[in-house]
Amino acid sequence: MFPKVHTGMEMAMERKGDCTKTMGNWEKHIPIFAQKMKTYPGLLWKTMWKVGHDDPRRVIHAFKVGLSLTLVSLLYLTEPLFEGIGQNAIWAVMTVVVVLEFTAGATLCKGLNRGFGTLLAGSLAFIFEYIATESGKVLRAVFIGAAVFLIGSAATYLRFFPYIKKNYDYGVVIFLLTFNLITVSSYRVDNVLKIAHDRFFTIAIGCGVCLLMSLLIFPNWSGEELHNSTVLKLEGLAKSIEACVNEYFVDTHIEDTGNQSSEDPIYEGYKAVLDSKSKDEALALYASWEPRHSRYCHRFPWQRYVKLGGVLRHFGYTVVALHGCLRTEIPTPQSVRTLFKDPCNRLAGEISKVLMELANSIRNHRHCSPEILSDHLHEALQDLNTAIKSQPRLFLGSNKNQATNMLALAAAQASQKHEKAPGVSLSSVKTDSSALMEWKSRRASDSKEAERKVLRPQLSKIAITSLEFSEALPFAAFASLLVEMVAKLDNVIEEVEGLGRAACYKEYHPCDEVVVTCDRKKINVSQNNVHTDGAD
Amino acid sequence: MFPKVHTGMEMAMERKGDCTKTMGNWEKHIPIFAQKMKTYPGLLWKTMWKVGHDDPRRVIHAFKVGLSLTLVSLLYLTEPLFEGIGQNAIWAVMTVVVVLEFTAGATLCKGLNRGFGTLLAGSLAFIFEYIATESGKVLRAVFIGAAVFLIGSAATYLRFFPYIKKNYDYGVVIFLLTFNLITVSSYRVDNVLKIAHDRFFTIAIGCGVCLLMSLLIFPNWSGEELHNSTVLKLEGLAKSIEACVNEYFVDTHIEDTGNQSSEDPIYEGYKAVLDSKSKDEALALYASWEPRHSRYCHRFPWQRYVKLGGVLRHFGYTVVALHGCLRTEIPTPQSVRTLFKDPCNRLAGEISKVLMELANSIRNHRHCSPEILSDHLHEALQDLNTAIKSQPRLFLGSNKNQATNMLALAAAQASQKHEKAPGVSLSSVKTDSSALMEWKSRRASDSKEAERKVLRPQLSKIAITSLEFSEALPFAAFASLLVEMVAKLDNVIEEVEGLGRAACYKEYHPCDEVVVTCDRKKINVSQNNVHTDGAD
Repeated sequence: MFPKVHTGMEMAMERKGDCTKTMGNWEKHIPIFAQKMKTYPGLLWKTMWKVGHDDPRRVIHAFKVGLSLTLVSLLYLTEPLFEGIGQNAIWAVMTVVVVLEFTAGATLCKGLNRGFGTLLAGSLAFIFEYIATESGKVLRAVFIGAAVFLIGSAATYLRFFPYIKKNYDYGVVIFLLTFNLITVSSYRVDNVLKIAHDRFFTIAIGCGVCLLMSLLIFPNWSGEELHNSTVLKLEGLAKSIEACVNEYFVDTHIEDTGNQSSEDPIYEGYKAVLDSKSKDEALALYASWEPRHSRYCHRFPWQRYVKLGGVLRHFGYTVVALHGCLRTEIPTPQSVRTLFKDPCNRLAGEISKVLMELANSIRNHRHCSPEILSDHLHEALQDLNTAIKSQPRLFLGSNKNQATNMLALAAAQASQKHEKAPGVSLSSVKTDSSALMEWKSRRASDSKEAERKVLRPQLSKIAITSLEFSEALPFAAFASLLVEMVAKLDNVIEEVEGLGRAACYKEYHPCDEVVVTCDRKKINVSQNNVHTDGAD
Repeated sequence: MFPKVHTGMEMAMERKGDCTKTMGNWEKHIPIFAQKMKTYPGLLWKTMWKVGHDDPRRVIHAFKVGLSLTLVSLLYLTEPLFEGIGQNAIWAVMTVVVVLEFTAGATLCKGLNRGFGTLLAGSLAFIFEYIATESGKVLRAVFIGAAVFLIGSAATYLRFFPYIKKNYDYGVVIFLLTFNLITVSSYRVDNVLKIAHDRFFTIAIGCGVCLLMSLLIFPNWSGEELHNSTVLKLEGLAKSIEACVNEYFVDTHIEDTGNQSSEDPIYEGYKAVLDSKSKDEALALYASWEPRHSRYCHRFPWQRYVKLGGVLRHFGYTVVALHGCLRTEIPTPQSVRTLFKDPCNRLAGEISKVLMELANSIRNHRHCSPEILSDHLHEALQDLNTAIKSQPRLFLGSNKNQATNMLALAAAQASQKHEKAPGVSLSSVKTDSSALMEWKSRRASDSKEAERKVLRPQLSKIAITSLEFSEALPFAAFASLLVEMVAKLDNVIEEVEGLGRAACYKEYHPCDEVVVTCDRKKINVSQNNVHTDGAD
């Protein structure tokens, strides 16, 4: 019994140690901290350079903010301007700090919200002031307090309305700010109208400087950003699909070294699509405030871009599932892979071609070719179908001998994977169901914690590999997902055409094809540029 | 030739009409607008009620803001307090408006950012003032202008650093605001130190009121919100999988009426998981500012929740792919469905059970049962495998007769779908490749626009259905995705256990099982509560 208690104590201490680790490690941290301080300037410089290199527009934006602030400070610093505006010139400076955003749309959205919020609050405060002006000092204080409470609660509640939250959240905050400023000040200052007037006037000057800067000097358009990111998403998906199919049909050994890190080209391709919802919506919102710069359209359909983004996200989920087929626990034998390599590669190539054509059509603001769903795609589907039908024996129960080989392979793969994972070690890998049996018998023993770490993560994987599933199953899934993708392409094409119609894209001309090839170079430039860190 | 020109003109006019529709419809809009104005009060009241009903904490928060504003206004309204603080009391009011957020973490984050930003800016401005104080009037103006430009540009550039952007964005804005306020004011006001001191003091009072309100009176914790949303995500996935498998095996006719609307229970289940990234990250960020309220842990591992969210998202993509199998263009015949109904249902049930157990373990802050990967799951896998192997003939080429039936069915389905879609009509649906041939021949004709609308969306669907793919293909994909899901369960369990260890969850005791059943009722309440509209 003694060892058991000891183990328990050790475990408890380990747990405690785990939790108070940060405390105990203080002494160790000091030299590490000193080391960090030495490398810090280099790191800082590297980060600074990277931030500017990734998107040079950031540097320009920083200078724009500095310049605007200096310009607006002149209101306070130069004698003639100061005489006209007075002490309140400081509001203009504050407006510039808060309103000037990275893209023109965001600046317009904030600036107009701030302007209208101030105007509305000024008017309302003036009405309240008019009502309260005839009452006595104490009654007036009570009245002001009640007004502050009511308007404060109401405005805060209003901010929870989805429509208000999406479009006018900042306006409501500024409304509340200005209303309180004027109402509370009115208790001790006589000329409330002057406060309201000055505040509005200086804020208008600040907003004016911001709009001038963001609309006229090196403007960054949210709409353009949304447009480019849509093109890049389509291209990313196309590259992902091709890379995915290529990886599926290469040698099994190479396949296994590809880990799900961020450097995986497949993951890189669809990553941007998956979590694009909030970014797209913010960009579309800001873009809707921007002046339309299209010749034909009265209202540019930014919401169609958001909708297309949604369709692309759903297309992307299929690509993720396809990517999942590469990492399945039931391995597809090499013989099956070689059998279907050509038709699958061809089909994937055709799908990518369609996506690329869609990307090009959006990039060049033109309708896509009416031959976008080409005969080649149909032929590729036909080929895949023929190839599958020509191998009826494949889908029969698996050859026992081959299955054992597969299991050995899978087990070896599993052991490789787990050697990489920190803190998880396994002395020997069982290649068949006996591992499962052993796990079950061991489960009865006491050392839960340790065992849980070692054996749990593998359990269902062992279960799957030990079952000798039909080896056609994963390939069938792979093929079915490819076919599914062709069906989903329709939705994407439909959405792109809807966008084209709504945005009055120019008609497709076969001779435009030349332009497409020339425009290819643009990709890298815009890839550098698309970063929305500054967009919201 | 005449009709052709006419058609062209008509098309051009239609295009133009499409673009300037908004202009021409003004007259039509007036009665619609009047109608809207009548229904507006009712709609407003409904929205107001819904916002409060969805999450009653919003009403409380609105009152909290009103109360805080009134409290802080007393600084200005009551005589003795005003004498101490003076005109600058207005800064406290403004601080409350800007800082008091829905959750305690967000308020703390903003409040501390504002406090430190002000303090830092005040110190820096004081140093600049000390340097500038000895120079002449003009030189001083130039010096101030240069300082404003440099600090403005540098601070704006700093905001693009990902680490700063994530954690201290608001602090940098406030730093810039205060620095400009003090530096520019110092040109005309002598006692800059007093401005800096007053501003810091009043902002501290404002922040103090906010923290008091958000930490002590009905606090909403971001951490709790994150915890609950994680539980709900696990439960949603479990429900989705079960609903998905149920729908797959019900009668085909019923299946087709289920459209991809938001009321679809399958979609409802995984919807919250898919786009959770930004919400999770914001909540984890705010939660990291909140005081830990765990007994054992020094640092509560909020980032582990974000990581678990990522793993769940990847699990969710598989569920989406499974959902896609329900809407595939290659229909699975009823005979195949009935064959595999039981093992698939059982496997899905076991997967949901594991997810539910994980949800319960997180909800009760305890480790999950070591028997979480039960024998039942393994048996269900085995059953499915046996069922697949017992039907070797299924995966052979399809029976010609049956295939034709399938095609007729698919075509009928397609026509039903397209009747629902507005603006798309089709006189007769071709049930075989002849439709494709006809499309190709028609493509040569001139009326591009109309034809594009009618025939394009169907093309690849016709191509797929006309190919008579092996009918086992979609079912194999379905089964493979189910098996894949079991493999992915491992990652989820591993992540939940990692979270449990890091968050010092209590040990699992078999008798806790009773608690699980009791706690089930909580689900609905927390489902009502989890809304982050106010969180960011």
